[in-house]
Amino acid sequence: MAQRIGFLGPVGTYTEEAALLFAANQGGTGLDLQPFPSIPAVGSAVASGNTELGVVPIENSLEGSVNFTLDLLVGNPDLSIQNEVVVPIDHYLMAKPGTVLTDIQVVFSHPQALAQCKEFLERSIPNAQQMASLSTVAAVADMRDSKAPSAAISPRRAADLNPDVEIIGRDIQDNPNNATRFVVLALSDHPPTGNDKTSICLSFQEVDASGLLHSALGVFAAREINLMKIESRPTKQSLGEYIFLIDCAGHREDPLIKDALDSLSGLSRMLMVFGSYPCWQR
Amino acid sequence: MAQRIGFLGPVGTYTEEAALLFAANQGGTGLDLQPFPSIPAVGSAVASGNTELGVVPIENSLEGSVNFTLDLLVGNPDLSIQNEVVVPIDHYLMAKPGTVLTDIQVVFSHPQALAQCKEFLERSIPNAQQMASLSTVAAVADMRDSKAPSAAISPRRAADLNPDVEIIGRDIQDNPNNATRFVVLALSDHPPTGNDKTSICLSFQEVDASGLLHSALGVFAAREINLMKIESRPTKQSLGEYIFLIDCAGHREDPLIKDALDSLSGLSRMLMVFGSYPCWQR
Repeated sequence: MAQRIGFLGPVGTYTEEAALLFAANQGGTGLDLQPFPSIPAVGSAVASGNTELGVVPIENSLEGSVNFTLDLLVGNPDLSIQNEVVVPIDHYLMAKPGTVLTDIQVVFSHPQALAQCKEFLERSIPNAQQMASLSTVAAVADMRDSKAPSAAISPRRAADLNPDVEIIGRDIQDNPNNATRFVVLALSDHPPTGNDKTSICLSFQEVDASGLLHSALGVFAAREINLMKIESRPTKQSLGEYIFLIDCAGHREDPLIKDALDSLSGLSRMLMVFGSYPCWQR
Repeated sequence: MAQRIGFLGPVGTYTEEAALLFAANQGGTGLDLQPFPSIPAVGSAVASGNTELGVVPIENSLEGSVNFTLDLLVGNPDLSIQNEVVVPIDHYLMAKPGTVLTDIQVVFSHPQALAQCKEFLERSIPNAQQMASLSTVAAVADMRDSKAPSAAISPRRAADLNPDVEIIGRDIQDNPNNATRFVVLALSDHPPTGNDKTSICLSFQEVDASGLLHSALGVFAAREINLMKIESRPTKQSLGEYIFLIDCAGHREDPLIKDALDSLSGLSRMLMVFGSYPCWQR
Protein backbone atom coordinates (compact mmCIF):
# COMPACT_ATOMS: atom_id res chain seq x y z
CA MET A 1 0.00 0.00 0.00
CA ALA A 2 1.19 3.49 -0.78
CA GLN A 3 2.48 5.46 2.19
CA ARG A 4 0.20 8.41 2.90
CA ILE A 5 2.00 11.73 3.44
CA GLY A 6 0.03 14.71 4.69
CA PHE A 7 1.48 18.17 4.11
CA LEU A 8 0.60 21.77 4.81
CA GLY A 9 -1.24 22.72 1.63
CA PRO A 10 -2.22 23.97 -0.79
CA VAL A 11 -0.61 22.09 -3.66
CA GLY A 12 2.25 24.05 -5.24
CA THR A 13 3.76 25.56 -2.09
CA TYR A 14 7.27 25.03 -0.76
CA THR A 15 5.85 22.47 1.70
CA GLU A 16 4.62 20.32 -1.19
CA GLU A 17 8.06 20.76 -2.75
CA ALA A 18 9.57 19.47 0.53
CA ALA A 19 7.20 16.48 0.54
CA LEU A 20 8.10 15.67 -3.09
CA LEU A 21 11.83 16.04 -2.38
CA PHE A 22 11.48 13.78 0.65
CA ALA A 23 9.58 11.21 -1.39
CA ALA A 24 12.18 11.32 -4.17
CA ASN A 25 14.95 10.89 -1.58
CA GLN A 26 13.18 7.78 -0.26
CA GLY A 27 13.22 6.42 -3.80
CA GLY A 28 9.49 6.92 -3.48
CA THR A 29 7.07 5.35 -5.88
CA GLY A 30 3.50 4.80 -4.80
CA LEU A 31 3.43 7.72 -2.42
CA ASP A 32 0.11 9.33 -1.68
CA LEU A 33 0.46 13.06 -0.94
CA GLN A 34 -2.47 14.80 0.72
CA PRO A 35 -2.71 18.55 1.39
CA PHE A 36 -4.12 19.75 4.75
CA PRO A 37 -5.28 23.30 5.51
CA SER A 38 -3.16 23.94 8.63
CA ILE A 39 -0.19 22.69 10.64
CA PRO A 40 -2.41 21.37 13.47
CA ALA A 41 -4.51 19.52 10.85
CA VAL A 42 -1.36 17.78 9.55
CA GLY A 43 -0.50 16.86 13.16
CA SER A 44 -3.99 15.45 13.79
CA ALA A 45 -3.83 13.39 10.60
CA VAL A 46 -0.60 11.75 11.75
CA ALA A 47 -1.69 11.35 15.39
CA SER A 48 -4.95 9.66 14.33
CA GLY A 49 -3.27 7.37 11.80
CA ASN A 50 -5.12 9.04 8.91
CA THR A 51 -1.71 9.54 7.27
CA GLU A 52 1.55 7.78 8.16
CA LEU A 53 3.66 10.91 7.73
CA GLY A 54 3.17 14.68 7.84
CA VAL A 55 5.39 17.39 6.37
CA VAL A 56 5.40 20.84 8.01
CA PRO A 57 7.80 23.80 8.01
CA ILE A 58 9.83 24.32 11.19
CA GLU A 59 12.30 27.12 10.37
CA ASN A 60 12.30 30.25 8.21
CA SER A 61 9.15 29.62 6.28
CA LEU A 62 6.90 31.83 4.23
CA GLU A 63 3.93 29.63 4.60
CA GLY A 64 3.44 28.89 8.23
CA SER A 65 4.95 29.95 11.48
CA VAL A 66 7.52 27.84 13.27
CA ASN A 67 5.48 28.46 16.40
CA PHE A 68 2.59 26.34 15.16
CA THR A 69 4.94 23.40 14.58
CA LEU A 70 6.69 23.76 17.94
CA ASP A 71 3.34 24.05 19.72
CA LEU A 72 2.25 20.91 17.91
CA LEU A 73 5.34 18.97 19.06
CA VAL A 74 5.18 20.26 22.64
CA GLY A 75 1.44 19.56 22.87
CA ASN A 76 1.46 16.10 21.26
CA PRO A 77 3.97 13.73 22.87
CA ASP A 78 2.72 11.05 20.42
CA LEU A 79 4.27 12.88 17.48
CA SER A 80 7.94 12.45 16.63
CA ILE A 81 10.25 13.99 14.05
CA GLN A 82 11.16 11.15 11.70
CA ASN A 83 13.03 13.14 9.06
CA GLU A 84 14.03 16.60 7.97
CA VAL A 85 14.06 18.22 4.53
CA VAL A 86 15.86 21.43 3.63
CA VAL A 87 14.43 23.25 0.62
CA PRO A 88 16.14 26.24 -0.98
CA ILE A 89 13.60 29.04 -1.32
CA ASP A 90 14.01 30.17 -4.93
CA HIS A 91 11.41 32.67 -6.03
CA TYR A 92 10.36 32.70 -9.68
CA LEU A 93 8.59 35.45 -11.59
CA MET A 94 5.70 34.09 -13.66
CA ALA A 95 3.33 35.67 -16.14
CA LYS A 96 0.95 34.86 -18.97
CA PRO A 97 2.86 33.65 -22.06
CA GLY A 98 4.32 36.47 -24.15
CA THR A 99 4.52 38.95 -21.27
CA VAL A 100 7.82 40.82 -21.11
CA LEU A 101 9.29 42.38 -18.00
CA THR A 102 8.73 45.96 -19.18
CA ASP A 103 4.99 45.30 -19.68
CA ILE A 104 4.31 44.38 -16.08
CA GLN A 105 2.08 46.79 -14.18
CA VAL A 106 1.16 44.62 -11.17
CA VAL A 107 3.10 42.00 -9.17
CA PHE A 108 1.21 39.60 -6.90
CA SER A 109 2.62 37.55 -4.02
CA HIS A 110 2.59 36.86 -0.31
CA PRO A 111 3.84 40.08 1.35
CA GLN A 112 6.89 38.26 2.73
CA ALA A 113 7.86 37.01 -0.73
CA LEU A 114 7.47 40.55 -2.09
CA ALA A 115 9.77 41.74 0.71
CA GLN A 116 12.32 39.02 -0.07
CA CYS A 117 12.47 40.20 -3.72
CA LYS A 118 12.48 43.92 -2.91
CA GLU A 119 15.81 44.76 -4.58
CA PHE A 120 14.94 42.78 -7.71
CA LEU A 121 11.58 44.53 -8.01
CA GLU A 122 13.09 47.99 -7.49
CA ARG A 123 15.77 47.29 -10.07
CA SER A 124 13.72 45.48 -12.72
CA ILE A 125 10.14 46.73 -12.53
CA PRO A 126 10.25 49.79 -10.27
CA ASN A 127 6.87 51.08 -11.45
CA ALA A 128 4.90 47.88 -11.00
CA GLN A 129 2.28 48.00 -8.25
CA GLN A 130 2.72 45.35 -5.55
CA MET A 131 -0.42 43.45 -4.56
CA ALA A 132 -0.79 41.00 -1.67
CA SER A 133 -1.91 37.40 -2.14
CA LEU A 134 -2.79 34.88 0.57
CA SER A 135 0.07 32.61 -0.50
CA THR A 136 2.74 32.36 -3.19
CA VAL A 137 0.47 29.89 -4.97
CA ALA A 138 -2.68 32.02 -4.74
CA ALA A 139 -0.53 34.70 -6.43
CA VAL A 140 -0.63 32.73 -9.70
CA ALA A 141 -4.44 32.70 -9.70
CA ASP A 142 -4.55 36.40 -8.79
CA MET A 143 -2.15 37.13 -11.68
CA ARG A 144 -4.33 35.13 -14.07
CA ASP A 145 -7.50 36.96 -12.99
CA SER A 146 -5.88 40.38 -13.26
CA LYS A 147 -6.90 42.58 -16.19
CA ALA A 148 -3.66 44.62 -16.14
CA PRO A 149 -0.43 43.01 -17.43
CA SER A 150 0.71 41.19 -14.29
CA ALA A 151 3.24 38.81 -12.80
CA ALA A 152 3.33 36.51 -9.76
CA ILE A 153 6.22 35.61 -7.45
CA SER A 154 5.86 31.88 -6.79
CA PRO A 155 7.78 28.62 -6.32
CA ARG A 156 8.97 26.97 -9.53
CA ARG A 157 6.49 24.15 -8.94
CA ALA A 158 3.60 26.55 -9.50
CA ALA A 159 4.69 26.78 -13.16
CA ASP A 160 4.63 22.95 -13.47
CA LEU A 161 1.08 22.94 -12.13
CA ASN A 162 -0.03 25.78 -14.42
CA PRO A 163 1.09 25.03 -17.98
CA ASP A 164 -0.47 28.27 -19.23
CA VAL A 165 2.03 30.25 -17.19
CA GLU A 166 5.53 31.23 -18.29
CA ILE A 167 8.61 31.73 -16.10
CA ILE A 168 10.14 35.14 -16.87
CA GLY A 169 12.56 35.43 -13.94
CA ARG A 170 14.52 32.83 -11.92
CA ASP A 171 15.99 33.02 -8.40
CA ILE A 172 14.84 36.59 -8.04
CA GLN A 173 15.12 36.67 -4.22
CA ASP A 174 17.64 39.20 -2.91
CA ASN A 175 19.37 36.75 -0.60
CA PRO A 176 20.64 33.67 -2.46
CA ASN A 177 21.01 31.62 0.74
CA ASN A 178 17.35 31.57 1.70
CA ALA A 179 16.21 28.09 2.74
CA THR A 180 13.40 26.55 4.74
CA ARG A 181 13.74 23.53 6.96
CA PHE A 182 10.80 21.12 7.09
CA VAL A 183 10.22 18.17 9.39
CA VAL A 184 8.49 14.90 8.59
CA LEU A 185 6.26 13.91 11.52
CA ALA A 186 5.28 10.34 12.37
CA LEU A 187 4.25 8.22 15.36
CA SER A 188 7.88 7.13 15.81
CA ASP A 189 11.25 8.61 15.00
CA HIS A 190 13.92 7.07 12.75
CA PRO A 191 16.22 4.13 13.48
CA PRO A 192 19.94 5.04 13.66
CA THR A 193 21.70 5.56 10.31
CA GLY A 194 25.13 6.75 11.48
CA ASN A 195 24.51 10.37 10.43
CA ASP A 196 21.69 11.54 12.66
CA LYS A 197 20.58 14.45 14.75
CA THR A 198 18.36 14.60 17.80
CA SER A 199 15.95 17.44 18.60
CA ILE A 200 15.08 18.09 22.22
CA CYS A 201 13.20 20.67 24.21
CA LEU A 202 14.08 21.68 27.78
CA SER A 203 12.01 23.79 30.09
CA PHE A 204 13.28 25.72 33.09
CA GLN A 205 11.27 27.39 35.81
CA GLU A 206 13.20 30.63 35.62
CA VAL A 207 13.93 32.95 32.73
CA ASP A 208 17.25 33.84 34.32
CA ALA A 209 18.49 30.30 34.04
CA SER A 210 22.02 30.99 32.84
CA GLY A 211 23.43 28.56 35.42
CA LEU A 212 21.03 25.80 34.44
CA LEU A 213 21.52 26.36 30.73
CA HIS A 214 25.26 26.35 31.27
CA SER A 215 24.96 23.02 33.12
CA ALA A 216 22.79 21.65 30.33
CA LEU A 217 25.30 22.66 27.67
CA GLY A 218 28.05 21.25 29.88
CA VAL A 219 26.36 17.86 29.53
CA PHE A 220 26.97 18.08 25.77
CA ALA A 221 30.40 19.71 25.96
CA ALA A 222 31.73 17.11 28.43
CA ARG A 223 30.81 14.38 25.94
CA GLU A 224 32.01 16.36 22.91
CA ILE A 225 28.55 16.16 21.38
CA ASN A 226 28.14 18.76 18.64
CA LEU A 227 25.25 21.19 18.86
CA MET A 228 23.61 22.22 15.60
CA LYS A 229 21.10 24.65 17.01
CA ILE A 230 20.15 26.24 20.29
CA GLU A 231 17.33 28.62 20.84
CA SER A 232 15.44 30.02 23.78
CA ARG A 233 11.87 31.10 23.36
CA PRO A 234 9.13 32.12 25.77
CA THR A 235 6.46 29.53 26.47
CA LYS A 236 3.01 30.84 25.77
CA GLN A 237 1.49 29.44 28.93
CA SER A 238 2.98 31.87 31.39
CA LEU A 239 5.01 34.97 30.78
CA GLY A 240 8.64 34.71 31.82
CA GLU A 241 8.99 30.95 31.44
CA TYR A 242 11.35 29.86 28.74
CA ILE A 243 11.99 26.72 26.78
CA PHE A 244 15.25 25.84 25.11
CA LEU A 245 15.31 24.01 21.82
CA ILE A 246 18.47 22.08 21.07
CA ASP A 247 19.48 20.04 18.02
CA CYS A 248 22.54 17.89 18.64
CA ALA A 249 24.51 15.51 16.45
CA GLY A 250 23.84 11.82 17.10
CA HIS A 251 20.96 9.40 17.73
CA ARG A 252 19.17 9.02 21.06
CA GLU A 253 20.04 5.30 20.98
CA ASP A 254 23.77 6.07 20.74
CA PRO A 255 25.22 5.32 24.21
CA LEU A 256 26.80 8.80 24.38
CA ILE A 257 23.54 10.62 23.58
CA LYS A 258 21.50 8.29 25.79
CA ASP A 259 23.82 9.09 28.68
CA ALA A 260 23.60 12.83 27.96
CA LEU A 261 19.78 12.71 27.88
CA ASP A 262 19.76 10.85 31.22
CA SER A 263 21.89 13.61 32.76
CA LEU A 264 19.72 16.35 31.26
CA SER A 265 16.49 14.92 32.61
CA GLY A 266 17.83 15.42 36.12
CA LEU A 267 18.56 19.10 35.47
CA SER A 268 15.42 20.35 33.87
CA ARG A 269 11.78 20.57 34.82
CA MET A 270 10.73 19.14 31.49
CA LEU A 271 12.72 17.28 28.85
CA MET A 272 11.02 16.27 25.62
CA VAL A 273 12.80 14.34 22.90
CA PHE A 274 11.14 15.32 19.62
CA GLY A 275 13.03 12.55 17.86
CA SER A 276 16.23 11.33 16.22
CA TYR A 277 16.43 11.36 12.44
CA PRO A 278 18.92 11.39 9.57
CA CYS A 279 20.61 14.72 8.75
CA TRP A 280 19.24 15.94 5.43
CA GLN A 281 21.42 15.11 2.44
CA ARG A 282 20.46 15.46 -1.16
CA MET B 1 14.40 71.09 18.88
CA ALA B 2 12.12 68.11 18.62
CA GLN B 3 13.84 64.75 18.59
CA ARG B 4 13.37 63.05 15.24
CA ILE B 5 12.32 59.39 15.42
CA GLY B 6 12.29 57.32 12.25
CA PHE B 7 10.18 54.17 12.21
CA LEU B 8 9.31 51.35 9.82
CA GLY B 9 6.15 52.70 8.21
CA PRO B 10 3.51 53.14 7.13
CA VAL B 11 1.65 55.16 9.75
CA GLY B 12 -0.79 53.02 11.73
CA THR B 13 1.28 49.83 12.04
CA TYR B 14 2.49 48.20 15.23
CA THR B 15 5.89 49.84 14.69
CA GLU B 16 4.30 53.29 14.85
CA GLU B 17 2.48 52.12 17.98
CA ALA B 18 5.87 51.13 19.43
CA ALA B 19 7.33 54.55 18.53
CA LEU B 20 4.36 56.31 20.16
CA LEU B 21 4.60 54.12 23.27
CA PHE B 22 8.32 54.83 23.50
CA ALA B 23 7.72 58.58 23.10
CA ALA B 24 4.98 58.52 25.76
CA ASN B 25 7.31 56.60 28.10
CA GLN B 26 9.96 59.30 27.62
CA GLY B 27 7.36 61.87 28.68
CA GLY B 28 7.64 62.93 25.06
CA THR B 29 6.29 66.19 23.83
CA GLY B 30 7.71 67.74 20.69
CA LEU B 31 8.65 64.44 19.12
CA ASP B 32 8.85 64.28 15.37
CA LEU B 33 7.89 60.82 14.06
CA GLN B 34 8.84 59.97 10.47
CA PRO B 35 7.84 56.78 8.62
CA PHE B 36 10.45 55.03 6.41
CA PRO B 37 9.67 52.35 3.81
CA SER B 38 12.06 49.64 5.04
CA ILE B 39 14.23 48.54 7.96
CA PRO B 40 17.49 49.39 6.11
CA ALA B 41 16.05 52.84 5.34
CA VAL B 42 15.43 53.42 9.07
CA GLY B 43 19.02 52.32 9.76
CA SER B 44 20.43 54.70 7.11
CA ALA B 45 18.41 57.59 8.52
CA VAL B 46 19.96 57.04 11.97
CA ALA B 47 23.48 56.34 10.66
CA SER B 48 23.46 59.52 8.56
CA GLY B 49 22.07 61.69 11.35
CA ASN B 50 18.86 62.33 9.38
CA THR B 51 16.94 61.16 12.47
CA GLU B 52 18.30 60.80 16.02
CA LEU B 53 16.42 57.56 16.69
CA GLY B 54 14.94 54.70 14.68
CA VAL B 55 12.30 52.16 15.75
CA VAL B 56 12.30 48.72 14.11
CA PRO B 57 10.86 45.31 15.07
CA ILE B 58 13.37 42.71 16.27
CA GLU B 59 11.28 39.73 17.44
CA ASN B 60 7.99 38.11 16.42
CA SER B 61 6.74 40.76 14.10
CA LEU B 62 4.08 40.85 11.45
CA GLU B 63 5.55 43.73 9.62
CA GLY B 64 9.18 43.03 9.01
CA SER B 65 11.54 40.18 9.49
CA VAL B 66 13.87 40.01 12.45
CA ASN B 67 16.57 39.09 9.95
CA PHE B 68 16.53 42.53 8.37
CA THR B 69 17.13 44.14 11.78
CA LEU B 70 19.89 41.71 12.75
CA ASP B 71 21.59 42.18 9.38
CA LEU B 72 21.39 45.92 9.94
CA LEU B 73 23.04 45.67 13.37
CA VAL B 74 25.73 43.23 12.23
CA GLY B 75 26.49 45.28 9.10
CA ASN B 76 26.54 48.73 10.76
CA PRO B 77 28.84 48.90 13.79
CA ASP B 78 27.87 52.60 14.10
CA LEU B 79 24.32 51.67 15.13
CA SER B 80 23.50 50.80 18.73
CA ILE B 81 20.37 49.65 20.51
CA GLN B 82 19.42 52.51 22.82
CA ASN B 83 16.06 51.22 24.03
CA GLU B 84 13.53 48.44 23.64
CA VAL B 85 9.74 48.56 23.48
CA VAL B 86 7.42 45.57 23.88
CA VAL B 87 4.02 45.98 22.24
CA PRO B 88 1.19 43.51 22.77
CA ILE B 89 -0.16 42.51 19.38
CA ASP B 90 -3.92 42.93 19.78
CA HIS B 91 -5.81 42.50 16.55
CA TYR B 92 -9.04 44.45 16.07
CA LEU B 93 -11.82 43.81 13.61
CA MET B 94 -12.90 47.00 11.84
CA ALA B 95 -15.65 47.79 9.38
CA LYS B 96 -17.69 50.63 7.96
CA PRO B 97 -20.09 52.07 10.58
CA GLY B 98 -23.27 50.06 10.99
CA THR B 99 -21.75 46.78 9.76
CA VAL B 100 -22.65 43.79 11.94
CA LEU B 101 -20.61 40.61 12.20
CA THR B 102 -23.18 38.49 10.38
CA ASP B 103 -23.09 40.82 7.34
CA ILE B 104 -19.40 40.36 6.64
CA GLN B 105 -18.60 38.59 3.39
CA VAL B 106 -14.90 39.47 3.06
CA VAL B 107 -12.09 39.91 5.63
CA PHE B 108 -8.90 41.72 4.62
CA SER B 109 -5.52 41.55 6.36
CA HIS B 110 -1.86 40.58 6.12
CA PRO B 111 -1.85 36.76 5.70
CA GLN B 112 -0.01 36.34 9.02
CA ALA B 113 -2.66 38.37 10.86
CA LEU B 114 -5.39 36.26 9.22
CA ALA B 115 -3.52 33.15 10.43
CA GLN B 116 -3.24 34.56 13.96
CA CYS B 117 -7.02 35.06 14.08
CA LYS B 118 -7.90 31.74 12.43
CA GLU B 119 -9.99 30.34 15.30
CA PHE B 120 -11.87 33.60 15.75
CA LEU B 121 -12.69 33.76 12.04
CA GLU B 122 -13.82 30.12 11.91
CA ARG B 123 -16.02 30.62 14.96
CA SER B 124 -17.49 34.04 14.21
CA ILE B 125 -17.62 34.50 10.44
CA PRO B 126 -16.93 31.06 8.97
CA ASN B 127 -18.32 31.99 5.55
CA ALA B 128 -16.39 35.21 5.06
CA GLN B 129 -13.80 35.07 2.28
CA GLN B 130 -10.25 35.88 3.41
CA MET B 131 -8.35 38.36 1.24
CA ALA B 132 -4.66 39.28 1.54
CA SER B 133 -3.47 42.85 2.09
CA LEU B 134 0.12 44.11 1.98
CA SER B 135 -0.06 45.16 5.64
CA THR B 136 -2.55 45.31 8.49
CA VAL B 137 -2.94 49.01 7.71
CA ALA B 138 -3.45 48.55 3.97
CA ALA B 139 -6.25 46.18 5.01
CA VAL B 140 -8.35 49.15 6.18
CA ALA B 141 -8.08 50.83 2.76
CA ASP B 142 -8.84 47.54 1.02
CA MET B 143 -11.91 47.11 3.23
CA ARG B 144 -13.06 50.67 2.45
CA ASP B 145 -12.67 50.11 -1.30
CA SER B 146 -14.49 46.78 -1.24
CA LYS B 147 -18.00 46.66 -2.69
CA ALA B 148 -19.05 43.62 -0.62
CA PRO B 149 -19.73 44.06 3.13
CA SER B 150 -16.20 43.72 4.49
CA ALA B 151 -14.00 43.92 7.57
CA ALA B 152 -10.29 44.45 8.19
CA ILE B 153 -8.01 42.97 10.86
CA SER B 154 -5.78 45.85 11.98
CA PRO B 155 -4.09 47.44 15.01
CA ARG B 156 -6.33 49.61 17.20
CA ARG B 157 -4.42 52.67 16.04
CA ALA B 158 -5.78 52.22 12.52
CA ALA B 159 -9.25 53.09 13.88
CA ASP B 160 -7.88 56.30 15.46
CA LEU B 161 -6.44 57.29 12.09
CA ASN B 162 -9.63 56.44 10.20
CA PRO B 163 -12.58 58.02 12.01
CA ASP B 164 -15.00 56.62 9.41
CA VAL B 165 -14.18 53.11 10.59
CA GLU B 166 -15.83 51.29 13.47
CA ILE B 167 -14.27 48.64 15.75
CA ILE B 168 -16.54 45.58 15.83
CA GLY B 169 -14.18 43.09 17.49
CA ARG B 170 -11.38 43.50 20.06
CA ASP B 171 -8.39 41.26 20.84
CA ILE B 172 -9.52 38.72 18.29
CA GLN B 173 -6.13 36.96 17.99
CA ASP B 174 -6.23 33.30 19.05
CA ASN B 175 -3.20 33.56 21.33
CA PRO B 176 -3.65 36.24 23.98
CA ASN B 177 0.11 36.41 24.74
CA ASN B 178 1.22 37.61 21.31
CA ALA B 179 3.74 40.46 21.58
CA THR B 180 6.39 42.05 19.39
CA ARG B 181 9.67 43.43 20.66
CA PHE B 182 11.00 46.56 18.99
CA VAL B 183 14.38 48.23 19.39
CA VAL B 184 15.19 51.92 19.28
CA LEU B 185 18.38 52.46 17.29
CA ALA B 186 20.76 55.39 17.75
CA LEU B 187 24.41 56.30 17.31
CA SER B 188 25.07 55.45 20.97
CA ASP B 189 23.48 53.15 23.48
CA HIS B 190 21.92 54.17 26.84
CA PRO B 191 23.70 55.24 30.03
CA PRO B 192 23.22 52.84 32.99
CA THR B 193 19.87 53.06 34.80
CA GLY B 194 20.18 50.16 37.24
CA ASN B 195 17.73 47.96 35.33
CA ASP B 196 19.42 47.30 32.03
CA LYS B 197 20.13 44.58 29.55
CA THR B 198 22.96 44.14 27.08
CA SER B 199 22.62 42.55 23.63
CA ILE B 200 25.65 40.91 22.11
CA CYS B 201 26.46 38.81 19.10
CA LEU B 202 29.19 36.15 19.00
CA SER B 203 30.50 34.38 15.97
CA PHE B 204 32.28 31.06 15.90
CA GLN B 205 34.15 29.45 13.04
CA GLU B 206 32.48 26.10 13.47
CA VAL B 207 28.85 25.11 13.53
CA ASP B 208 29.67 22.31 15.97
CA ALA B 209 30.82 24.76 18.59
CA SER B 210 29.23 23.17 21.65
CA GLY B 211 32.49 23.46 23.59
CA LEU B 212 32.96 27.12 22.68
CA LEU B 213 29.33 27.99 23.39
CA HIS B 214 29.59 26.17 26.69
CA SER B 215 32.69 28.21 27.55
CA ALA B 216 30.91 31.41 26.53
CA LEU B 217 27.93 30.61 28.73
CA GLY B 218 30.35 29.65 31.48
CA VAL B 219 31.60 33.25 31.41
CA PHE B 220 28.09 34.37 32.36
CA ALA B 221 27.33 31.52 34.77
CA ALA B 222 30.59 32.01 36.72
CA ARG B 223 29.56 35.63 37.34
CA GLU B 224 25.90 34.76 38.00
CA ILE B 225 24.85 37.03 35.16
CA ASN B 226 21.30 36.27 34.07
CA LEU B 227 20.62 35.47 30.43
CA MET B 228 17.36 36.70 28.98
CA LYS B 229 17.74 35.22 25.52
CA ILE B 230 20.08 33.01 23.58
CA GLU B 231 19.74 32.05 19.98
CA SER B 232 21.92 30.55 17.31
CA ARG B 233 21.32 31.35 13.69
CA PRO B 234 23.21 30.73 10.48
CA THR B 235 25.12 33.67 9.06
CA LYS B 236 24.13 34.41 5.51
CA GLN B 237 27.69 34.94 4.31
CA SER B 238 28.80 31.34 4.32
CA LEU B 239 26.82 28.22 4.90
CA GLY B 240 27.65 26.41 8.12
CA GLU B 241 28.86 29.42 10.07
CA TYR B 242 26.74 30.37 13.02
CA ILE B 243 26.28 33.42 15.16
CA PHE B 244 24.93 33.42 18.69
CA LEU B 245 22.73 36.23 19.92
CA ILE B 246 22.68 36.72 23.68
CA ASP B 247 20.74 39.18 25.82
CA CYS B 248 22.03 39.36 29.38
CA ALA B 249 20.96 41.35 32.44
CA GLY B 250 23.16 44.33 33.27
CA HIS B 251 24.95 47.23 31.58
CA ARG B 252 28.23 46.92 29.68
CA GLU B 253 29.71 49.58 32.01
CA ASP B 254 28.92 47.47 35.11
CA PRO B 255 32.26 46.01 36.26
CA LEU B 256 30.82 42.47 36.22
CA ILE B 257 29.53 42.73 32.63
CA LYS B 258 32.65 44.56 31.48
CA ASP B 259 34.76 41.74 32.87
CA ALA B 260 32.53 39.12 31.21
CA LEU B 261 32.76 40.88 27.83
CA ASP B 262 36.55 41.00 28.14
CA SER B 263 36.63 37.24 28.71
CA LEU B 264 34.24 36.59 25.83
CA SER B 265 36.28 38.57 23.33
CA GLY B 266 39.14 36.14 23.89
CA LEU B 267 36.93 33.13 23.12
CA SER B 268 35.17 34.12 19.96
CA ARG B 269 36.19 35.14 16.46
CA MET B 270 33.84 38.11 16.53
CA LEU B 271 32.13 39.83 19.43
CA MET B 272 29.76 42.71 18.74
CA VAL B 273 28.01 44.61 21.51
CA PHE B 274 24.75 45.89 20.04
CA GLY B 275 24.25 48.04 23.11
CA SER B 276 23.10 48.33 26.71
CA TYR B 277 19.66 49.78 27.38
CA PRO B 278 16.90 49.87 29.99
CA CYS B 279 14.62 46.82 30.25
CA TRP B 280 11.19 47.80 28.94
CA GLN B 281 8.70 48.76 31.63
CA ARG B 282 5.36 50.40 31.09
